[in-house]
Amino acid sequence: MTSDPGGGKWVMRLAFESRTARFVDIIHRIEENGGQVGTIDLIDVDGGGGGRETRDFIVTAAPVGQVQRIVQAVRDMPGVTVIHTDDPTFRLHAGGKIEIRNKVPLRTRDDLAMLYTPGFAHVAKAIARNPDEVYRLTIKSHAVAIVTDGTAVSGLGDIGPEAGLPVMEGKAMLFKHFADIDAFPLCLGTKDVDEIVRVVKCIEPTFSAIMLEDISAPRCFEIEERLRQELAIPVFHDDQHGTAVSATAALINALNVVGKRAGDIKVAVVGVGAAGTACAKMFRQLGVRNIVGCDRKGALHRDRDDLNAAKRWFAENMNPEQEKGSLGSVIAGADVFLGVSGPGVITVEDIGRMSRDPIIFALANPNPEILPEEVRGIAAVIATGRSDFPNQIDNGLCYPGLFRGALDCRARGINEEMKMAAARAIAGVIDPESLYAQYVIPSIFDPRVVPDVAAAVRTAAIETGMAGKSTMPMSGSARAALSA
Amino acid sequence: MTSDPGGGKWVMRLAFESRTARFVDIIHRIEENGGQVGTIDLIDVDGGGGGRETRDFIVTAAPVGQVQRIVQAVRDMPGVTVIHTDDPTFRLHAGGKIEIRNKVPLRTRDDLAMLYTPGFAHVAKAIARNPDEVYRLTIKSHAVAIVTDGTAVSGLGDIGPEAGLPVMEGKAMLFKHFADIDAFPLCLGTKDVDEIVRVVKCIEPTFSAIMLEDISAPRCFEIEERLRQELAIPVFHDDQHGTAVSATAALINALNVVGKRAGDIKVAVVGVGAAGTACAKMFRQLGVRNIVGCDRKGALHRDRDDLNAAKRWFAENMNPEQEKGSLGSVIAGADVFLGVSGPGVITVEDIGRMSRDPIIFALANPNPEILPEEVRGIAAVIATGRSDFPNQIDNGLCYPGLFRGALDCRARGINEEMKMAAARAIAGVIDPESLYAQYVIPSIFDPRVVPDVAAAVRTAAIETGMAGKSTMPMSGSARAALSA
Repeated sequence: MTSDPGGGKWVMRLAFESRTARFVDIIHRIEENGGQVGTIDLIDVDGGGGGRETRDFIVTAAPVGQVQRIVQAVRDMPGVTVIHTDDPTFRLHAGGKIEIRNKVPLRTRDDLAMLYTPGFAHVAKAIARNPDEVYRLTIKSHAVAIVTDGTAVSGLGDIGPEAGLPVMEGKAMLFKHFADIDAFPLCLGTKDVDEIVRVVKCIEPTFSAIMLEDISAPRCFEIEERLRQELAIPVFHDDQHGTAVSATAALINALNVVGKRAGDIKVAVVGVGAAGTACAKMFRQLGVRNIVGCDRKGALHRDRDDLNAAKRWFAENMNPEQEKGSLGSVIAGADVFLGVSGPGVITVEDIGRMSRDPIIFALANPNPEILPEEVRGIAAVIATGRSDFPNQIDNGLCYPGLFRGALDCRARGINEEMKMAAARAIAGVIDPESLYAQYVIPSIFDPRVVPDVAAAVRTAAIETGMAGKSTMPMSGSARAALSA
Repeated sequence: MTSDPGGGKWVMRLAFESRTARFVDIIHRIEENGGQVGTIDLIDVDGGGGGRETRDFIVTAAPVGQVQRIVQAVRDMPGVTVIHTDDPTFRLHAGGKIEIRNKVPLRTRDDLAMLYTPGFAHVAKAIARNPDEVYRLTIKSHAVAIVTDGTAVSGLGDIGPEAGLPVMEGKAMLFKHFADIDAFPLCLGTKDVDEIVRVVKCIEPTFSAIMLEDISAPRCFEIEERLRQELAIPVFHDDQHGTAVSATAALINALNVVGKRAGDIKVAVVGVGAAGTACAKMFRQLGVRNIVGCDRKGALHRDRDDLNAAKRWFAENMNPEQEKGSLGSVIAGADVFLGVSGPGVITVEDIGRMSRDPIIFALANPNPEILPEEVRGIAAVIATGRSDFPNQIDNGLCYPGLFRGALDCRARGINEEMKMAAARAIAGVIDPESLYAQYVIPSIFDPRVVPDVAAAVRTAAIETGMAGKSTMPMSGSARAALSA
C-alpha cells in the first residue's frame, strides 16, 4: 500500500519564455526535487529564439509524494507555465474512466432491425402498454444517476461541475466493478436548489435510483429531503449516509474490540456538516445516548447564539446534558472521537484525557484530524478515510451494495432500517475471532461486502414495506428450452 | 434482408382463467396462426382448479410477421392476458441494450488510489485550475446526451418517456458502434418547453453535444432554437436534421441518376412537420427553387386561413409561384415527391402524372406513402425509410459521423454548412460509376460513411469558424519514451 502511487515515468508539458526561464534551470529544478529528466520534446515555438517554447519533459520520479512536489516546484518558477502533467494518475484518467458499451452486437441488417428500427418500436409499444416492462426491457432497472453541482467536491470545496466529473466517474467505476450497476455522472451547471430538484425530477424516468454527491451543506439537506418526498425511486446523499453507514459499521466493531456498549458511551463529534450530522443520527439509532457536537469554539449547546441551522439542530437534538466548554473539556472522558473536519483540531493531549481505550475516527481527507502514528499506544482503535492506514472508512464500502440491494427489490426509497442493515452487514463481514484493533472495518475489495450488504438491505426493504414489485423470472425449464 | 426477423423460438407468458379460456384453445389459436407450441411451464396458480393460471408457452414461429400476428390472436381471446412476450427482439432488449464499462481495471489498492480517492481529487484540482482539461481527463469529450420527452417516438406518437427509452438506447448503440461516441439516453418526465430547456442547460457541463430526439412539433423547434442560443456545445434535433441530411444525400444522387439539376426541378412535399420542413430547407440550399408543401386539403399557399404555424411558414417561404389546388394537381409535372406523412396519401395515378423519371421518397415508417412494388416501372428512383427495400433513408446514416466530426474539432454548434457537408459526404460514398436507381444512398454498414461524414463535417466547421480549441496531442517520441 502506498499513499501516492503516481510515480514512475510521466510527462510534464511546460510553456516557458526562453529569455526568463532557462532550459537548464528547469531541468535543475526537477532534479533537485528528486525527479530525473529523460527525453525532452519540442511541441511548439512562438516568436523564435528567446520567445515562448512549449516542450514535453519526460520525468522519472520515485513514488511517494514526489510527483506533486516536482510539479509544484516547476510551477513556482517565474516564466514557466505547467500546461499539463501526465503522471500515471493523469494517464489513467485520459479520455475518462468510463464508457458506454453495447451489450449485444450490431453486425447485420437483422441485428439493426431488431435493436434499432423497427424493432425498438415494438418494444416501445410494449412499454407504453405496460409501463412496468421498462424495468425488463431497458437499462432503467440497473441505471443510477450520480448527481452533483460541484460545490463540495471531495474536500476541495466549490470547484464547479466540470472539475467534479472525474470524482463522479470514480464513483461510477465502483458501482460497476463491485455491484454491476450502470451509473452515469450528471454534473449540473446550477447551484439553485429548486433547479437541481427540478432537473432530478425530470430525469427520473430513465433511472432506478439517484445518488447525490458532493453538494454543499445546507443545500444538500433540502435537496435530498425534497427529492425523497417527490420521487418514487431511492434518493441517497452519499456524503451524509454513505459516510454514516461506514462509520457506524466501524463503531459496531470497535466497541466490540474495546468491550463497551453503545448505550454507555460518550461521543465527541467535531465537524457538524452533512457527514457529521448523519453519523451522529446513525450512532444514536445504534443506541448511543451521549453525543456532543463541537466546533472550534467548543460544545454546541442551546445557549449559544452563534450557530447556523445545522449546528443549532445539533445543539437542540444532541448533547443531552447540555454540556458546555471547549473541545478539550468535552473530550475529557469521551469514549469516541469522530472528526469530520480538518487536520489539527485535536491534540495528542486531548486524546490522553479520553476514557479508557479511546476510539478515534479521524475522517478528514486527505489529512486526518490526527495521524495514527501520533496516537499509537494511546488510542485503542483508530480509523481514517485513507487507504494507506489500517481501518479505512470509505463510502465505497456502502453505496455499491446498498444500491444493489435497493435495485434488486425495486425499493421506493432508502429508509433508516435499510441503512442500519447495511452498517451491520459491513461490520458482520469480519467474524468475531478475526476482529482486532487494526481490523474493525473490511477492505472495499473484500468480496463479501457487496453481496452481504445487498442481501441485508433487500431484506430490510421487504420487511419495512419499502420494496416494490419484482418481476417473476422466466422458469428454469423455459430458459433451458430456449437455449437448447 | 427480412422485414421481421423476430421469429425462431420465443416465450409468451399468459395468464388465463381456466374456466373461460381452455388450455387446448390457446394452443389451437397459436397453431392456427402459424406457430408451434413446445414446452409449457406453469408459473403460478391463483385460486385452484378453474382459477387463474400463469404459464410460459414456448412457441416456434417462422420469421416473417408471424410473431406479432400470434401475439395479437392470443390477446384477442376472451379471458387471456398476455403478460409479456419474449421473441428474439424482446430477448435482445432484456436488461437494456447498453451498459457502462470501466475503461481501466480496478484491481488493487493502487488502482483505487489513482482512479478513486485520493487520485481523482488531483485530477479534479487540475480541471479546476484549467477548465479545458475536462476534455482531456474525463468522459466529456466523447459524451453525448440523447434527450427526449417521449412525445413523438418513432411514429408512435406521445407514448411517454419510459416507452421512449428503448429507442434512445438504439440510437446510443449506433453512436457507439459506428462512431465510438458514448451517448446516454435521458428520457425526461416533462413536456414543458421551459423545463426541457432548463434541464438541458443544467446538464451541459457533462456532455460535448446534445441530440434531441422524438420531441413533437412545434415544441421541438422552440426547444432546439433556444438551446442553440444558450449552449456552447452543439444541439441537433435528429428528427429534423438527420432526416434532412440523409434525404438530401439521396436527392443529390437521385438527380444524377435521372440527369436533372436541382435548380430546374419541382418538389412536392406531403407532411409538413419537423422532418418535412427541415428537408425542404436543405433542398432549397441545394439549389431547388420550386418546393410546394401539401396537406390533405392540397397546396399550402398564403391565401389559406386554416394553417398552423409550421404550415404557414411553409406557405409563406416555399411555393414561389403560390400554386393552389389539390395534391393531385400539385404533383402533376413535379420531379420529386417527398412524403413524410403516412400511407395512402398518394396514388399510382398521381405518380403517373409527374414529370419524366419521377423520384419518390416515401419516408413514412413503418408503412411508406406508397410501396416500391406499386410504382415499379413508373418511378425512376424510389427510396423509403425501411431496411427491407433498396435505398433506405435513415437518420443513422447522418448522426454518428456528423457528431464524430463535430466532437473531433470541438465544434460550438452545427451550422448549415456542416449539415450540407454531411449530405454531400454521404452521397459521395457511392462513386458515380456505381450509382444507379436502386443504389442512390449507401448502407448504414458501409465503412466509408462515418469517416467520410466526420472528415467533411470537421472541415466545414473549421472553414466556417465553428470549430473550437483542439488539444495538441503528445509528441510521438514522448509517447514512445513512455511506452518503452
